[in-house]
Amino acid sequence: MSKKESSILIAGGGSTYTPALVVMLLESLERLPLRKLKLYDNDEERQKTVAEACKIIIKERAPGVEFSYTTDPEEAFTDVDIVMAQLRVGKYALRELDEKIPFKHGVVGQETCGPGGIAYGLRSLGPIIELVDYMEKYSPNAWMLNYSNPAAIVAEGTRRFRPTSRIINICDMPVCLEDIMARVIGLKDRKDFETSYFGLNHFGWWTKIVNHEGMDLMPKISEHVKRQGYTENTQKGQHKEESWLETMRAAKELHEIEPEFLPNTYLKYYLMADSTVEHANKEYTRANEIIDGREKDVFSECRRITENGTAQDTSFKSNEHASFITDLACALTFNTKERMILITENRGAIANFAYDAMVELPCIVGKDGYEPISMGEIPTFEKGLMEQQIASEKLAVDAWEQGSYLKLWQALAMNKTVPSIAVAKEILDDLIVANKEFWPELK
Amino acid sequence: MSKKESSILIAGGGSTYTPALVVMLLESLERLPLRKLKLYDNDEERQKTVAEACKIIIKERAPGVEFSYTTDPEEAFTDVDIVMAQLRVGKYALRELDEKIPFKHGVVGQETCGPGGIAYGLRSLGPIIELVDYMEKYSPNAWMLNYSNPAAIVAEGTRRFRPTSRIINICDMPVCLEDIMARVIGLKDRKDFETSYFGLNHFGWWTKIVNHEGMDLMPKISEHVKRQGYTENTQKGQHKEESWLETMRAAKELHEIEPEFLPNTYLKYYLMADSTVEHANKEYTRANEIIDGREKDVFSECRRITENGTAQDTSFKSNEHASFITDLACALTFNTKERMILITENRGAIANFAYDAMVELPCIVGKDGYEPISMGEIPTFEKGLMEQQIASEKLAVDAWEQGSYLKLWQALAMNKTVPSIAVAKEILDDLIVANKEFWPELK
Repeated sequence: MSKKESSILIAGGGSTYTPALVVMLLESLERLPLRKLKLYDNDEERQKTVAEACKIIIKERAPGVEFSYTTDPEEAFTDVDIVMAQLRVGKYALRELDEKIPFKHGVVGQETCGPGGIAYGLRSLGPIIELVDYMEKYSPNAWMLNYSNPAAIVAEGTRRFRPTSRIINICDMPVCLEDIMARVIGLKDRKDFETSYFGLNHFGWWTKIVNHEGMDLMPKISEHVKRQGYTENTQKGQHKEESWLETMRAAKELHEIEPEFLPNTYLKYYLMADSTVEHANKEYTRANEIIDGREKDVFSECRRITENGTAQDTSFKSNEHASFITDLACALTFNTKERMILITENRGAIANFAYDAMVELPCIVGKDGYEPISMGEIPTFEKGLMEQQIASEKLAVDAWEQGSYLKLWQALAMNKTVPSIAVAKEILDDLIVANKEFWPELK
Repeated sequence: MSKKESSILIAGGGSTYTPALVVMLLESLERLPLRKLKLYDNDEERQKTVAEACKIIIKERAPGVEFSYTTDPEEAFTDVDIVMAQLRVGKYALRELDEKIPFKHGVVGQETCGPGGIAYGLRSLGPIIELVDYMEKYSPNAWMLNYSNPAAIVAEGTRRFRPTSRIINICDMPVCLEDIMARVIGLKDRKDFETSYFGLNHFGWWTKIVNHEGMDLMPKISEHVKRQGYTENTQKGQHKEESWLETMRAAKELHEIEPEFLPNTYLKYYLMADSTVEHANKEYTRANEIIDGREKDVFSECRRITENGTAQDTSFKSNEHASFITDLACALTFNTKERMILITENRGAIANFAYDAMVELPCIVGKDGYEPISMGEIPTFEKGLMEQQIASEKLAVDAWEQGSYLKLWQALAMNKTVPSIAVAKEILDDLIVANKEFWPELK
C-alpha cells in the first residue's frame, strides 16, 4: 500500500521563510509525500513574488505536486490536511517598533519577550483565530501547525477562544538549541538523544538529556555551557550574526544561576535585561538587520528565479532545522508517536502550576494529536519566574478580549523586563499609537 | 468571677518601642489585666536603660503588676502567657546597611522589601526560632505574638522549622492603614467597619470594606485614595515624616493600576521601584532618621525618668495604634473571636495559590488560635505579583536552611526590585560582607 499523500497549506505564504520551507518539504517527500502544496497570504503582491519562484522550484523538483497560491480563504483552506502557519502581522515595520519603542524607555526591545512581544501578540491573536476558523470551516479534519510568534500569547488565545480547535503550537528554539547541544558534544543531531524540558514558550529549562543507551549527557553539555554558553567552536549552526552569538554566550550566565538545568536562551531578556538593553544597538535592531538582509536577499533571489525561469542554480537551501515541522506533520499523518517539545495546556503535567496555563513540555504526538509528558513539581525559582511571566501573558490576552487598557497596563507592569508601573504606562501609550491599525480599541 | 490576669513577656525589651507599648498595656488593664510584665533582651545595657524607666512608670501607674527584666532566657520565659516579640537583629546599624547597600546598586533600599528585607530576614530567622524554643521549653502553653520584621520571611521560617509552634505573626501596617481609611471618611477608627483583604505581608490589597450596617464603604475611600492616596487633610496619624507622606501619596498611583481594590503602601517598593530609588536620600536613610531621632529621644527620655525617679511628666504616650497587639492578646486569652488580619499558612484560603504559602488574610482569633477566612480565587495581576514575591521569600528561607549562596542569589534575582541576575550577585556579595556576624556561612 502506498503512503498517504498530504495536501499542505502554508499560511503566510509571502514570508521570507517560505522558499526554504518549500525546498525542505520537497526534500522530505519520501517520508511526507505530498499531493498538493498551496500558499495563502493576505498580501497579494508579496506572496506573488515568493510563489512564482516556488512554482518553478516545484515544477523542476517535484512536478507531481500540485502547486497553487491564493489570497482567497475558501480556495486556500479547502481540501487541506495540514496548515503550516507562519504569520507576521504588521510585518517587519511593526517588528521594528516592537523593538524600538521599549528601548526608548530603557526596556528590552524584542519581538517575543517583554512589551514588544505583548504588542505583537495583540496584533496576532485576531488573524490566527481567523485562520483557525477558516480551517474549521473548509477542512475540519486538518491540523494547524502554528509556529507564528509570539507563540505563548497566541497559544493562550487559541486555548481560550478556540478550545476544541486542531491547532498545535510549536516553537523552533528548543529544536535549534538541542541541535547545538548535540554538536557541542560531538553527536550528529538532536535525534541522538531524548530530552526532558519544562517551562513556558521562550521561557524554559532542560532537566534531562539521555542518549538512547540511557547515558546521562547533561554533565558533558553543562561543562560546555559553563565554559562558553551555547557558542560552538565550528560555526555550523544557522545563527551567525553577532546578536545571536551574544545570545548564545549569555547562556553561560543563565546556567550559573541554575546549574542543575540548561536554559532556553530567551531567558536572557528577562534575567539579563540590563545588559541586554545596554549592549543593544537601539537605532538599528534585528528588524533592520532582516529588512536590509534576509528580506532583500530572499525577494531578489525569488525575482531572479522567476526572470530566469529556472531554479537549478538557486541559493535557496533546505532549512534543515525547520525539519521539525515535517516531523510534526509526519507524527500526525502516520501516527509516529514522536516525542516533541510543544506548547500545551498544562492540565497537571507541571503539578505545582496552574491547570489552564499554556506551558512548553515534551509531548508524544500521534494521529489523534498530542499528550504531554508529566514533569511533576518544579523548583521555586523557575516556578516564581514562570508565574510572573504567565500572568503577564494571560493579562495580555485578557486585554485583547476585553479591549481593556487597564489589563494591558497590568500585563506590562507585571513583566520582569519592565521596572515600574510608570514606565509600563509610557510604553503602553506609545504602543497604542504604533498599533492603531492592528489592536482592538482599548478603553 | 474576676478576669484572668496574664503574664506578659516583651522580647526585645531594649526596643525604642517598649516604653510606648508598656504605657499602652497599662492603659488597657481593664480589658487585659496583668499580673506580671517582663522584659527580655540579649543587649543588657540597652535594655537596662529602657527597663529602669518602665519600672518607674509601672510603679506609679499600676503597682500591682509585678515587673522585672532579664537577659536570662529561663527567667524570662518561665510562667508566661503571652510573649510579644519585637526583635531587631543587628539593630539600626545593620538596618542602615540593608537600606544603603541596595541603593549603591540602584535598587530599592528598604528594611522589609527587596534585598534589604531578605538580608534582615536571614539575620532574624535564627533568633526568632530561638525565642520560640525558649517559649516551648519554659511556657509551652504560651502564645507568641510576633511583629518583628521582616514578617514574611520570619513567618515562612517558623512555619517551616517550627510547624506546631504557638507563634502568631502579625503586622501593624494593615491596622495603620485601616485607621487612616476610617479617618478619611469621617469615622472614628477601623473598628467602625469590617474588611476583606488578601496578599502577602507588605504585599496585599483590600477587597471589601463594609460598616456594621452592611454599607459598602469602598467607593468613598477609593474616591479619597484616587485623589490623594492615603494622605490625610488633618495630620492626626502617627507618620508625619516626609518619607512617610510620600509613601502615603504613592497609594494614589498604586490604586490606578488596580482600581477595584485598595493597596498596601509597601507595594510601592515593588511597583514604583524606579521613582522610589530616584527620590530617596541614599546617604541619609530611614535608619539614620531613627538613630538621630526616635532612638536618641527615647533613650534620653528613659534616662531622664530614671534620674528624676518619676514618670509623672513623661512624654511617653500610649501607642494607640499598637492596641492591635492587645486586641490579639485579648482574643487569645478571652476567646473574643475578633477578626484580625494575620500572616497565616494559606491552606486553600486563596484557592489559586500554593497551599503552603504564608499569606496575609483576615482571621478569626479565639482561645485555640486563629482560622483564616477563605478568599476564593484572586485575579491574575495580584496572583502573578504574589507568586514572584513568595518565590523570593521561600528561596531566602531555603538559602538560610541550606547555607546556599545559589538559593540566595536566586531569591534576590527573583525579586521584582532587582533588575538582573548580575545586579543580584553584586548586591549579594556586599550583603554577605555586611552580615558576616549574623548569617549562616553560604556555600
